[in-house]
Amino acid sequence: LSGHYESLDYECDESEIAHMEEKRLGYQHTRRIVVLKWLIMLLIGICTGLIAVFVDFTVKNLTKFKFSYVQNKLETCLSEHCLFKPYLAWIGINISMVLIAGLLILWEPVARGSGIPQVKCYLNGVAIPHVLRLKALIAKVLGVIFAVSGGLAVGKEGPMIHAGAIVAGGISQGKSTSLKFDLHILKYFRTDKHKRDFVSAGAAAGVAAAFGAPVGGVLFALEEGASFFNQQLTWFIFFASMTSTFTLNVVMSAIDGHFGDLSSPGLINFGLFKDTPYMWFELPLFIVVGCIGGIFGALFNQLNLRLTKFRHHYINKRWLLVIEVILVAATTVVVAFLLIIGTMYECRPIKTQLELNSPTIQLYCPDGQYNVMGTIVFSTPEQAVRNLFHSEIGTYYPWSLLVFCIIYFCLTCWTYGVIVSSGLFIPSLLIGASWGRLVGIVLHTLFPSNVKYFDPGKYALFGAASQLGGTMRMTISLAVILIEATGDIGLGLPIMIVLTVAKLTGDYFNEGFFDMHIALQSVPFLPWQSDIFAYQLSALNIMSAPVIQLKTVEKVENIYHILRTESHHGFPVVDHHTDETSNQRAGTFQGIILRHQLITMLRKRNFISLNDSLRDYLTMDDFRESYPRHPPIESIHLTNEERELYCDLRPYMHLAYTVSHSATLPRIFSMFRGLGLRHLVVVNDKNEVVGMITRKDLARFR
Amino acid sequence: LSGHYESLDYECDESEIAHMEEKRLGYQHTRRIVVLKWLIMLLIGICTGLIAVFVDFTVKNLTKFKFSYVQNKLETCLSEHCLFKPYLAWIGINISMVLIAGLLILWEPVARGSGIPQVKCYLNGVAIPHVLRLKALIAKVLGVIFAVSGGLAVGKEGPMIHAGAIVAGGISQGKSTSLKFDLHILKYFRTDKHKRDFVSAGAAAGVAAAFGAPVGGVLFALEEGASFFNQQLTWFIFFASMTSTFTLNVVMSAIDGHFGDLSSPGLINFGLFKDTPYMWFELPLFIVVGCIGGIFGALFNQLNLRLTKFRHHYINKRWLLVIEVILVAATTVVVAFLLIIGTMYECRPIKTQLELNSPTIQLYCPDGQYNVMGTIVFSTPEQAVRNLFHSEIGTYYPWSLLVFCIIYFCLTCWTYGVIVSSGLFIPSLLIGASWGRLVGIVLHTLFPSNVKYFDPGKYALFGAASQLGGTMRMTISLAVILIEATGDIGLGLPIMIVLTVAKLTGDYFNEGFFDMHIALQSVPFLPWQSDIFAYQLSALNIMSAPVIQLKTVEKVENIYHILRTESHHGFPVVDHHTDETSNQRAGTFQGIILRHQLITMLRKRNFISLNDSLRDYLTMDDFRESYPRHPPIESIHLTNEERELYCDLRPYMHLAYTVSHSATLPRIFSMFRGLGLRHLVVVNDKNEVVGMITRKDLARFR
Ligand SMILES: Nc1ncnc2c1ncn2[C@@H]1O[C@H](COP(=O)(O)OP(=O)(O)OP(=O)(O)O)[C@@H](O)[C@H]1O
Ligand SMILES: Nc1ncnc2c1ncn2[C@@H]1O[C@H](COP(=O)(O)OP(=O)(O)OP(=O)(O)O)[C@@H](O)[C@H]1O
Ligand SMILES: [Mg+2]
Ligand SMILES: [Mg+2]
Repeated sequence: LSGHYESLDYECDESEIAHMEEKRLGYQHTRRIVVLKWLIMLLIGICTGLIAVFVDFTVKNLTKFKFSYVQNKLETCLSEHCLFKPYLAWIGINISMVLIAGLLILWEPVARGSGIPQVKCYLNGVAIPHVLRLKALIAKVLGVIFAVSGGLAVGKEGPMIHAGAIVAGGISQGKSTSLKFDLHILKYFRTDKHKRDFVSAGAAAGVAAAFGAPVGGVLFALEEGASFFNQQLTWFIFFASMTSTFTLNVVMSAIDGHFGDLSSPGLINFGLFKDTPYMWFELPLFIVVGCIGGIFGALFNQLNLRLTKFRHHYINKRWLLVIEVILVAATTVVVAFLLIIGTMYECRPIKTQLELNSPTIQLYCPDGQYNVMGTIVFSTPEQAVRNLFHSEIGTYYPWSLLVFCIIYFCLTCWTYGVIVSSGLFIPSLLIGASWGRLVGIVLHTLFPSNVKYFDPGKYALFGAASQLGGTMRMTISLAVILIEATGDIGLGLPIMIVLTVAKLTGDYFNEGFFDMHIALQSVPFLPWQSDIFAYQLSALNIMSAPVIQLKTVEKVENIYHILRTESHHGFPVVDHHTDETSNQRAGTFQGIILRHQLITMLRKRNFISLNDSLRDYLTMDDFRESYPRHPPIESIHLTNEERELYCDLRPYMHLAYTVSHSATLPRIFSMFRGLGLRHLVVVNDKNEVVGMITRKDLARFR
Repeated sequence: LSGHYESLDYECDESEIAHMEEKRLGYQHTRRIVVLKWLIMLLIGICTGLIAVFVDFTVKNLTKFKFSYVQNKLETCLSEHCLFKPYLAWIGINISMVLIAGLLILWEPVARGSGIPQVKCYLNGVAIPHVLRLKALIAKVLGVIFAVSGGLAVGKEGPMIHAGAIVAGGISQGKSTSLKFDLHILKYFRTDKHKRDFVSAGAAAGVAAAFGAPVGGVLFALEEGASFFNQQLTWFIFFASMTSTFTLNVVMSAIDGHFGDLSSPGLINFGLFKDTPYMWFELPLFIVVGCIGGIFGALFNQLNLRLTKFRHHYINKRWLLVIEVILVAATTVVVAFLLIIGTMYECRPIKTQLELNSPTIQLYCPDGQYNVMGTIVFSTPEQAVRNLFHSEIGTYYPWSLLVFCIIYFCLTCWTYGVIVSSGLFIPSLLIGASWGRLVGIVLHTLFPSNVKYFDPGKYALFGAASQLGGTMRMTISLAVILIEATGDIGLGLPIMIVLTVAKLTGDYFNEGFFDMHIALQSVPFLPWQSDIFAYQLSALNIMSAPVIQLKTVEKVENIYHILRTESHHGFPVVDHHTDETSNQRAGTFQGIILRHQLITMLRKRNFISLNDSLRDYLTMDDFRESYPRHPPIESIHLTNEERELYCDLRPYMHLAYTVSHSATLPRIFSMFRGLGLRHLVVVNDKNEVVGMITRKDLARFR
């Protein structure tokens, strides 16, 4: 496990000064905090919704501009035999856009990928450095715009989740060091615990905006993120998600020219399935489709894992990364071009395409007809999915669909991991929809009498669900997201069945996509349960010992020394009734003091002389001041006189949980997850400190 | 708080013998358990689905039979002026049906009401006696059938949740004392922890079957029931819910004569809203509707609370209860009759009614027309709701709608609490739909140009959601249930907004309906959070002291004596290294031993003589044998020699959590909720037992 990451602390502060502050502020304050929380949730929802609109609007227009330009050139060149011209223009535009996206990531590396693993880690209790910075937001949003517009096989939905999380983190803290701005009223939210609440709401709002799925957002936050469940928090999250969808709908309706009509759906809309019945004898088919998706998903994960490892080893210089991203962009265009050329004569009469709102491309087709593959290639992935769902029976040639599916699979697999910010939802849906439609076509050919049931579009939907489930291994949240995104609940039950089967099948082979990436980065991620052999391990086997500990009244010199030499973030405080001379350090456990608290005490010179008692208490505000980036110990310099003084740790120490040395691993696990711990002190029968357990000690046993 | 209820124990057993068993069974066993769990979930889903079909089918046919009989009589008597005849027949049928329903409850009182409070308590950790018995299932199912068919203002959905929970409890235990049946393979599930998992799945399956809402079921279990959240359990619950809906759909499709076409929706179906747009300027209206619902809901709760208290005081004899239920039945008929007579001449041409699938009643209307109020009264509440949602503009006369709404409000309020098993969902929806439609009519009259938006049917839906939210105070789960039940997601967002507003408004006045009833029964229910002043209390203020404790090797005599004189269910085990003579009982804490374990040890004569060490360990099976109803201590008789022997408690004691005496209430709360505790031992600095905290000590502070 990497020592690069520090944990977050989701416990309430239980110290004398915390209780004093609570008492001083009283009941009124608690109510004000709740009202403030609702307001902040509202703001989070609105901002996330607006960002989603911005992304969508920009992507749509950039893409439209690009395609109309290329398409124009293409059609004029068809006759003039200058096909290389549009081709070069296309490559040029794409590469430059993707290059911008890549450079943004070089500027802020944390914005790479979809951001979902990072958000998951944060909610699990691990702070990935820089993950909630403003810089990350900018890189993420602009990066995804250029990546998608640059024609890469990426979606813009995943990044919205990360963007929402950053927005939430930022708004709730009301403070920006780079912008030199501090909203004092929000200082009470400057704890890991409160911040997590907001971040989970932000992530949910991101989902809600991306898919127009407020309930899906809540479920996503619960299923993927939460190590906690709390009714009130769920309502807060729900409120933020609702606001986000609502904002998005209002603004989108204005942009689309029917301002105020909110029944128009969210950011993506896969279109209603009207009158699509299903029969009980399709149940085995659902299961088969689920299995296929599970296998393909697992394959995808495995390939991507290999690729990521390869990249990690060999493509580790900045310029190599840039070259790779350019290569991906170029390959994508070449392949698209070849696809179009290869299927040049596959034409269909223009009929339903107009309804489906996507461009039709004539190419070598006779008038009144359009090129099928060209239409897929020249539309955004969302439109392509929509086409696969709703095009008439017989629109697609099975062979070209198969080729498209394989190519897109490989492209997506390659693309996720290069230095762009990229989502995986839509590409997975597109892969799934194409093989799903293929399944539908096969069924339809085998049983032509049951056309009504073996609708290729319906099976495209199931395929999409299956592929998504096989890759990401979520069930309920994905089901709800898909239902909300198609705006259609009639097929809800089969979607759920397909997703569950896909998840189970996939789990047989490997982990979910995001979990894999988390494991790859050696993040000390705490899973839901410990290993099943864990009952054979007790606290004694897990803990670190000896423990660096402090006395309730400790010499400044010692504290300073410990902080300089040890990198730990928490130190048990023990009673010092043992003989000073006998050198025996064990004392009964009193509480835990955090590194940043000690540093603040040193910085504020909160010292007493021996036999004196503390009069000038530091307040919670003193400790909050430097949240979340506390100054390092190196910034503090003490005189020799000061070093001889003492610190009284008792008012500041946190009355932490302890666990007996005979406790087993599963029990320690459930304490960490159930109570959101950062440090757990192991004590013996006499309440003497014998060891220390942190998340890193546990994460080894997943 | 009532001493009537005992707590459940949601901790894993952490004792020497438990670990020995785990080691012995090994890895294979764990996998088998998981597979078994999936299978049981499947069975739970199927059985719950079948029960739902049975209830629905029976109710539908009994009602149809009754109404066609009365209606026939009515129509022949209209001309012959013998109106009293159908009237008497109607009263007679209803009263006898309701009487059966009432007698069933006298036979098994726990089946009274909707059962949701009981299930909530169970999931919260309080065992309501008899709540999971087979008898309760029978009384519940038959009771609700007769209550609904008897024309009372009750729904059949709430009881399905309780029924599902009982089914789950029964199936998972694989054992019935009354049926003398024991499936040994399921013995590992005979712990509170496993049983709770199944019961929550059963409750979710109940919701899923009742409303055709699998996701709604999961959310219901989470939002209302769970004090826990665990990804894997959520998947189990989801699976059970899906199976339940699927089973229901298959069987219902067969009954309705289009076998296998599963796209037909669940048990209730409120019908799709086609092309019902909404505009941003309706937002204030949603909020207003939400407020109205919140106020009406709070009023409903308050009135019902008063009534329940009144009933508690004055109607406490069995015959009084029976008379009351007969009175309710009679009143319901009388009122319905008066409503029909009063609105005798309100006729509408038969047109849409046929599409809506509900009977039309002519009465005094000219041919080709039907009596509007008669149609509401003569259909099941579900059909009535459907009519209110989808009837054409202008179907209902505002005044009669208002009268109907008020009357139904009062009737429902009176009915919930008499001795029948009854649900509150549909009546609430009906009340809400009627005033909602009224709001729609008013809007429509005020702004006739915006007919498209101010559709009374749409506002009926919002009213229904609002009333339900105002009464029950759930948000996400109700939103999803309504969306799944209407099969329509287009109006999802406004429904969510309305529900949230209704909940917030209602919360301003009083608690949710079910919480109110739980509080009324003085159940030691643990809320999500402790009181906000709680930080001023520490473990010392809450705990019971002195604690009755046992030594690690304790004399049988003492154990027997303690069990006979004390009613506690758990006793701390302490090291007895303190002087026997000094009479000082405090020793360092070792573990907790439960009452039933002690009884088993006595019963099995697991004794040793002093200075001897234990060789014949009891196994987990010995302790499991009598789960969940353990024999009382009075059933055990010991000889004098036996009394002089000793019990070694060490292999059996549970290595429980402890908490320091300085811990504050919020922290103790989070331990109880986060870890599912039953007993929490308070220790001092030296790990000596100083106090004991159980759920009852905490529940005082809600
Ligand atoms: N006060 C301490 N004394 C001795 N060992 C400790 C102490 N605190 C932590 N450890 C051990 O040091 C190792 C690494 O510590 P780690 O960096 O996880 O602690 P931390 O910085 O306090 O927590 P985190 O990094 O998760 O925020 C772990 O194995 C942990 O058990
Ligand atoms: N071993 C004990 N010694 C002293 N007091 C106890 C002991 N166990 C419980 N109590 C106290 O007795 C009171 C009532 O106990 P209660 O009936 O709740 O205990 P229980 O039966 O063990 O738990 P439950 O009834 O919740 O299953 C509580 O205030 C509790 O703190
Ligand atoms: Mg560290
Ligand atoms: Mg008790």
